[in-house]
Amino acid sequence: MADKAQLQEAIKTQGEVVRKLKSEKASKEQIDEEVAKLLQLKAQLGGDEGKHVFVLKTAKGTRDYNPKQMAIREKVFNIIISCFKRHGAETIDTPVFELKETLTGKYGEDSKLIYDLKDQGGELLSLRYDLTVPFARYLAMNKITNIKRYHIAKVYRRDNPAMTRGRYREFYQCDFDIAGQYDAMIPDAECLKIVYEILNELDLGDFHIKVNDRRILDGMFAVCGVPGEKFRTICSTVDKLDKMAWEDVKKEMVNEKGLSEDVADRIGEYVNVFPLVFSYIYMKLLFSYLELFQVTDKVVFDLSLARGLDYYTGVIYEAILSQTIPAPAEQNGADEAGVSVGSVAGGGRYDGLVGMFDPKGRKVPCVGVSIGIERIFSIMEQKAETSSEKVRTTETQVLVASAQKNLLEERLKLTSELWNAGIKVEVLYKKNPKLLSQLQHCEETGIPLVAILGEQELKDGVVKLRNVASREEVDVPRADLVDEIKKRTL
Amino acid sequence: MADKAQLQEAIKTQGEVVRKLKSEKASKEQIDEEVAKLLQLKAQLGGDEGKHVFVLKTAKGTRDYNPKQMAIREKVFNIIISCFKRHGAETIDTPVFELKETLTGKYGEDSKLIYDLKDQGGELLSLRYDLTVPFARYLAMNKITNIKRYHIAKVYRRDNPAMTRGRYREFYQCDFDIAGQYDAMIPDAECLKIVYEILNELDLGDFHIKVNDRRILDGMFAVCGVPGEKFRTICSTVDKLDKMAWEDVKKEMVNEKGLSEDVADRIGEYVNVFPLVFSYIYMKLLFSYLELFQVTDKVVFDLSLARGLDYYTGVIYEAILSQTIPAPAEQNGADEAGVSVGSVAGGGRYDGLVGMFDPKGRKVPCVGVSIGIERIFSIMEQKAETSSEKVRTTETQVLVASAQKNLLEERLKLTSELWNAGIKVEVLYKKNPKLLSQLQHCEETGIPLVAILGEQELKDGVVKLRNVASREEVDVPRADLVDEIKKRTL
Repeated sequence: MADKAQLQEAIKTQGEVVRKLKSEKASKEQIDEEVAKLLQLKAQLGGDEGKHVFVLKTAKGTRDYNPKQMAIREKVFNIIISCFKRHGAETIDTPVFELKETLTGKYGEDSKLIYDLKDQGGELLSLRYDLTVPFARYLAMNKITNIKRYHIAKVYRRDNPAMTRGRYREFYQCDFDIAGQYDAMIPDAECLKIVYEILNELDLGDFHIKVNDRRILDGMFAVCGVPGEKFRTICSTVDKLDKMAWEDVKKEMVNEKGLSEDVADRIGEYVNVFPLVFSYIYMKLLFSYLELFQVTDKVVFDLSLARGLDYYTGVIYEAILSQTIPAPAEQNGADEAGVSVGSVAGGGRYDGLVGMFDPKGRKVPCVGVSIGIERIFSIMEQKAETSSEKVRTTETQVLVASAQKNLLEERLKLTSELWNAGIKVEVLYKKNPKLLSQLQHCEETGIPLVAILGEQELKDGVVKLRNVASREEVDVPRADLVDEIKKRTL
Repeated sequence: MADKAQLQEAIKTQGEVVRKLKSEKASKEQIDEEVAKLLQLKAQLGGDEGKHVFVLKTAKGTRDYNPKQMAIREKVFNIIISCFKRHGAETIDTPVFELKETLTGKYGEDSKLIYDLKDQGGELLSLRYDLTVPFARYLAMNKITNIKRYHIAKVYRRDNPAMTRGRYREFYQCDFDIAGQYDAMIPDAECLKIVYEILNELDLGDFHIKVNDRRILDGMFAVCGVPGEKFRTICSTVDKLDKMAWEDVKKEMVNEKGLSEDVADRIGEYVNVFPLVFSYIYMKLLFSYLELFQVTDKVVFDLSLARGLDYYTGVIYEAILSQTIPAPAEQNGADEAGVSVGSVAGGGRYDGLVGMFDPKGRKVPCVGVSIGIERIFSIMEQKAETSSEKVRTTETQVLVASAQKNLLEERLKLTSELWNAGIKVEVLYKKNPKLLSQLQHCEETGIPLVAILGEQELKDGVVKLRNVASREEVDVPRADLVDEIKKRTL
């Protein structure tokens, strides 16, 4: 497509950019990005010449999951989904892209991070930015007023800078929400119970859950004299209190958000000096339910908690791990704008969002929680790496093997018998594999048993069953083999 | 953004388009599309005036999955994933978008169906079109030469016309592949065994699996005098033989693909008159393994099978259901270009694809199968609709209820006790729900048990456990409740 001379010129220029960055010792990320551009240009040229020089990488800010990561991911999902199901939740799924206008006006300043699809004719589309807006769209579109659902899926944000700060551009969200008009604070309390159960079962060490209510914040802002149109933006500044000193938060309010200094100081008094000045009827009610659910040991009322998102209208909460795990350079994954380091779950009540989609503005009150699953994955991955126990990526119970030549057909036959009986079996795809390489495959992948066939065993109607770890071997009559394998791999 | 008068003009024009189509009795799909455009225009205008008129729909060619569809999807996935695991497979995941150039040159004529992302700065990206090309990219990038993996994820195709012909633009693929240099036909036979097992376990009625080998086709084409550069395009025409008469296939070869008439006639002789003229050594070997795997009752050698995709280099196969299920208008989902109606799985050997990504062109031989999961979903959905058995969307074992007022706290306390014991429990979020509405909730959602609390039960230290279906009630000591629920909901 591009003229060849032009391309060669562009490659030369880009090569200089890369060399300059390297000589300036620029960040690895910056250099990688420019190198990728260079390779893309070379690939175009290569294509013209019939040579294929591919850029072998995933898109910026994304990653593949290898089998080990998938095994950990599956374990985490199983714990979380079991909890959601224990609480009677259904699940739904929505498309990865929505009409662009469905997302418009829902994310405030963060809208610039939305991925748009190219206009190839037809509707204008964007990749979903979270699971909450598609959920609200789904409720309004299907006129659903009551549902308890979870949704685990990937969302997309053109966040920058990406990997070094641990933000992926493609990452999982894991949401549980209760929609419906109910008596106050009962579903809200269940959301907190769920966070408590999940963090306990994932065994991530001690944690606490901060709780606040947007109405308290709004009331406080009003009392302090914050203009109404600034409530949300001041909220997201207050939300930074766990990462920034009060003085810096104040500076941002005054210099960036245009709040007068005395109003900022009044907010500071509430947040810093009198954090528990009020006791609020709703908070009292919520805590009485949390008492019944036996979770108050981990829940603290925190007037400084604000949460970044615009759409919260009531109770808000955030769960924080106590242990400080040194985050690896590429995996410090927070899963939501404004979530602080250490935060692994967050959510709250949003009674207005569904009404934004309803033609008549009918409201469906909602409360929900989002589990910060990417952060949990990376903690689990680190734990797995430091642990002596190997992560298995398959569930194979037995390898069908042979020490002798020319037994491929007998091996395949036995393998098929075991598959048909529901046993998880592997067999090497070689005519005459060595016994040693068959045993090595078991050691490497953690297969606990080997079923060994030989001329003698075939004649005797038995199979030699070997325990890989103990090397102990025993002849098992072929008719008993399935039961014996089941017994040994419970 | 757009000028208001211009917008109003556009709305007027678009309104006329819609009225004209309706008066002409155009297809529902065509009308819907134009109505959507009209609503989008109105939404823009509404936005300007401060009124929000949202277009409440999912993007064209996509759909939400409701809880019932998700329950069916989960059941299907469980059967398929169990089979993959029984065969010792690992799983991986890749990002939903790839660098545009990763997809370039892999899909022949179908490349126009690739979704591109908008250029918002940075890399040029496209949504994945299948799972095979990302798999090949993953292998080359990580220098993996041996793996047995499955991958279940959504892929994206700007196919047109969409829903009425049952093609979704977002749909699942469910792939199992074996990469590595092995002795001939052993992994290929395992892929066929897997198709056989899955279709058996899904209980979709009788089926058969057609098998052919691209090398046979290529040899046949060469003998017939097809020019080398036309092998692939003629292949995809031959693949239409199950949907089109030979005369039409011939016409396409001659008129569209530029084959001479006598060459086309020679192909016709092979395909129609001498379908089993050759016996091929590889086919013999494959069938000997299939014999050992006990699947030959369903496998037939079919010289007319060609499969649409470019990259196959050896054995190819396709599984077809025998029963003709009347496909509903919107759900006749085939999941791959060129797959015929009734086809529910397909695949083959592709030894060249990974090498296209390797800088040095190193080959990694691969063979795999793709389960046509969307078609299977819709068959299962239809079966569920005609069946008398209700599809449950939750797994809740028991509802904690009360017939009396003011027992909310006792209900919550018992609910929490049961959650902590691992029981799946629901409780209505009402202070004083009526017993009838609590029982109705059980009937509607299929919850089999109700644990009823009253003043008397609390005093006696028991819970009244009610079987929803039989209405039988029995007092259970509180200490025995967990065991009793487990026993009754095995």
